[in-house]
Amino acid sequence: MTEFLKSELNKVKRGPKRANYDVATLYAILDDAFLCHVGYIFEGKAIVIPTAYARKNDKIYIHGSLKNRMMLSILSAGEACVSVTLLDGLVLARSAFHHSANYRSVNVFGTVKKVDNPKEKMDALACILNHMVPGHWDNVRQPNDKEFNATLVLEISIDSASAKIRAEGVNDEVEDHKLPIWAGVVPIRQIAFEAISDKDLPEETEVPEAVLRYVENNR
Amino acid sequence: MTEFLKSELNKVKRGPKRANYDVATLYAILDDAFLCHVGYIFEGKAIVIPTAYARKNDKIYIHGSLKNRMMLSILSAGEACVSVTLLDGLVLARSAFHHSANYRSVNVFGTVKKVDNPKEKMDALACILNHMVPGHWDNVRQPNDKEFNATLVLEISIDSASAKIRAEGVNDEVEDHKLPIWAGVVPIRQIAFEAISDKDLPEETEVPEAVLRYVENNR
Repeated sequence: MTEFLKSELNKVKRGPKRANYDVATLYAILDDAFLCHVGYIFEGKAIVIPTAYARKNDKIYIHGSLKNRMMLSILSAGEACVSVTLLDGLVLARSAFHHSANYRSVNVFGTVKKVDNPKEKMDALACILNHMVPGHWDNVRQPNDKEFNATLVLEISIDSASAKIRAEGVNDEVEDHKLPIWAGVVPIRQIAFEAISDKDLPEETEVPEAVLRYVENNR
Repeated sequence: MTEFLKSELNKVKRGPKRANYDVATLYAILDDAFLCHVGYIFEGKAIVIPTAYARKNDKIYIHGSLKNRMMLSILSAGEACVSVTLLDGLVLARSAFHHSANYRSVNVFGTVKKVDNPKEKMDALACILNHMVPGHWDNVRQPNDKEFNATLVLEISIDSASAKIRAEGVNDEVEDHKLPIWAGVVPIRQIAFEAISDKDLPEETEVPEAVLRYVENNR
């Protein structure tokens, strides 16, 4: 499958020319972001909670405490909507009406399962940590039994999804072009700064290559 | 009121020492972010959609097309949950288990009303634009009747809310401190770059003070 099929659930209604259903494009956005926002229903209300995640093939993994209300709710519902948004710029038009933002956002609609198999669960935890800082899992102390058992890992299969992408300049009305009003785009990006080492490190503990590379790639 | 009252809806269950109910603290987070994620229920599913917003006193305003499914759904439900998250750093511990993030997040639970009064609606639109770039509303062509009537503005009153804030270093187990494993924090921040002027501007149209100041304050 190279494109997600459109349904009432994932079809982009507003601004359809910004819609994108290409699997590779969606996966790239999911891999580029760090946080997702998950929706769940509590006492008839739709509640939204931010959390870390990682994608592996057509699955998203999230983790948390065994008593995490959001995780238990989507597990019991058996499905979830996950929203990931990257802000790329402020689009400042001549007219108030045409103000907008450049962004890449993905909505995933998936089936939720608890990851019970120990190998699969450990792989998912590695995947979430490596999504923070690629390759860093191998540098750290891995979970002991107590930590492992205290962590709930859920798999959300990417059954259906859509992206909305805006990546262009100002779209003012042509008759506004003559107005003596400035218009343009302010690019926005999330950047990383040099790592601040913990004060309790044994002497000569160096910042690992994976962390240096992460900062270099995100500065 | 200086603190939001705790209820089953807004009380932070996981990581209660990161919880914050102080009104001024919550408002500061809402004013610092640009995007929110709104939850709504569609055919029994909780769906999450990102959108721009602004806060004024104890209200949040969002806007969109008259046919925006998310907006019509929360209007018909009469209530909504809005989530705002700012990522401030990656917390890279010695142990996989203690990896975390520094962040400021707010969940707002509010009553939803359509803003019909023309003055109130225009004020809300100004508020949303000035939340993007403070003071920029006065620089742009304001909505004409057609644009004004094609825009749906909703007010979400901040009836209940809570914040979760993590702003500290690594919290590893003390017995892990002797391990020859690096730990530390990678600060993360969203920054703005110099504005790129539209190519169709009349000659000598200068970047307005408000935009220059925004970039300066967010670089």
